[in-house]
Amino acid sequence: MRWLVNGAPDAQIDVTDRGFSYGDGLFETIAVRNGQLRFFGAHYARLVLSCRRLLLPVPDQHALTENATRLMGDDTDGTLKIIVSRGPGERGYRLPKTTQPTCAIGFSPEPVTLSPVDGIVATVCTTRVSSNPATAGMKTLNRLEQVLARAEWDDPAVAEGLMQNMSDDLIGGTMSNLFVVLRDQLWTPVLDESGVHGVMRAQVMNLAEDLGIACNERRLTPGVLEEAEDVFFTNARVGVWPVARIAGYEYVRHPRTLEIMRGLAQRGVIECAH
Amino acid sequence: MRWLVNGAPDAQIDVTDRGFSYGDGLFETIAVRNGQLRFFGAHYARLVLSCRRLLLPVPDQHALTENATRLMGDDTDGTLKIIVSRGPGERGYRLPKTTQPTCAIGFSPEPVTLSPVDGIVATVCTTRVSSNPATAGMKTLNRLEQVLARAEWDDPAVAEGLMQNMSDDLIGGTMSNLFVVLRDQLWTPVLDESGVHGVMRAQVMNLAEDLGIACNERRLTPGVLEEAEDVFFTNARVGVWPVARIAGYEYVRHPRTLEIMRGLAQRGVIECAH
Repeated sequence: MRWLVNGAPDAQIDVTDRGFSYGDGLFETIAVRNGQLRFFGAHYARLVLSCRRLLLPVPDQHALTENATRLMGDDTDGTLKIIVSRGPGERGYRLPKTTQPTCAIGFSPEPVTLSPVDGIVATVCTTRVSSNPATAGMKTLNRLEQVLARAEWDDPAVAEGLMQNMSDDLIGGTMSNLFVVLRDQLWTPVLDESGVHGVMRAQVMNLAEDLGIACNERRLTPGVLEEAEDVFFTNARVGVWPVARIAGYEYVRHPRTLEIMRGLAQRGVIECAH
Repeated sequence: MRWLVNGAPDAQIDVTDRGFSYGDGLFETIAVRNGQLRFFGAHYARLVLSCRRLLLPVPDQHALTENATRLMGDDTDGTLKIIVSRGPGERGYRLPKTTQPTCAIGFSPEPVTLSPVDGIVATVCTTRVSSNPATAGMKTLNRLEQVLARAEWDDPAVAEGLMQNMSDDLIGGTMSNLFVVLRDQLWTPVLDESGVHGVMRAQVMNLAEDLGIACNERRLTPGVLEEAEDVFFTNARVGVWPVARIAGYEYVRHPRTLEIMRGLAQRGVIECAH
């Protein structure tokens, strides 16, 4: 990955950066397709909202896209990462008198990978996602729970791990959101206390509405995996990952999943084109 | 604060450091008194245990103390901070194939401040501490909840904020552990799902045992503040902070609190000597 830190091609940050000391910041991971930052508006809107919740200065939209374009150069496909932290600070949790945020932008060129329509193998993680309305929904730099969950398996055949909260509710994958197809409808976990409001999740919910497929947020318990007619994960970079097998249950593609994938492909999620 | 990063006087870390990306690491804050790292054995033991839980390589004890001594130079009193992160990594939560941990050691000389025996003013924070046995007890780099809690007040007369978990149980201060004196005994929150196993907390519990004062961990609900005969916070750097006022309740020093402070002073917590 190549990086710009506060606009300079300098891959170093200060050791007193509160991103490093406390995970005091946020990030976005954006798919670059055909030279464009896919769904940039939605990513930027989430970043702005999260910055406000964390009392962080909002990075300038124009500077972000300009730096992204510089970094991408002639590469047309890959992954762009934006990290915004509260920048250098003295010891102690108290906010600095003057915040000089750090904005790091990284890009790695990558070929586009087709979404595996036959589905991935996923596991159910032991590590839980904790609940806290103060940080729920945001992609903060506090990601130790996801790191520990991802460390639970090493088998390259397993692509994702499903995480529950402390009440056993399903929340999402370590790096993705969860949808289940049940009685011809879509269901996705409510994220008011845990999880990340994924940009691809919002696309799926919006698309479902346009297609006349009922799609609702609710508490999902592990029992739903037995009832489900199909299961899939979503993520800004991979699009849709349908599930072939998880927790002993097997799924084949349901017409609703295929409809969602076709619709996403038409909206630029070319990984879903089959 | 002056810093050594992996032994070098270089106050920069790589932008791909997983401490920065994910808060993937730990820290210790150690009081330096009279040229000594106070309770270093206890700090190092906690660091080792936490490194094992996070699947991090354990930093060498000798290298740590040697670098600390170099940093301190001729200064005899201050605060030493040790940060251990999982070091540089590619994008994604998966652990790197080969971990090259980052060990950053910072020192700031500071005069020793006497513990305010009349007590501090504290507030009860709205921001909650989340519950997760996977990270409970450790001083991880995921500290956004403490940052948000500390941002709730700006009044310099308020020294600490008390945090509850999602079930309303009292857990501790933003940067300290909590003790209450009740029916001549000490009580401190059980920390199996949230909070940090503070080094000064362990000293107080051990001292109480030596002094024949009953001291127990249990769930403490906010109601305990009304019943309490005294309340104090503990922290490796400040020793004991008795509470004068919190949530409308006022406290004067109970003999048990004074006994604990005298005992700590004898064990090198000179802030508690009055």
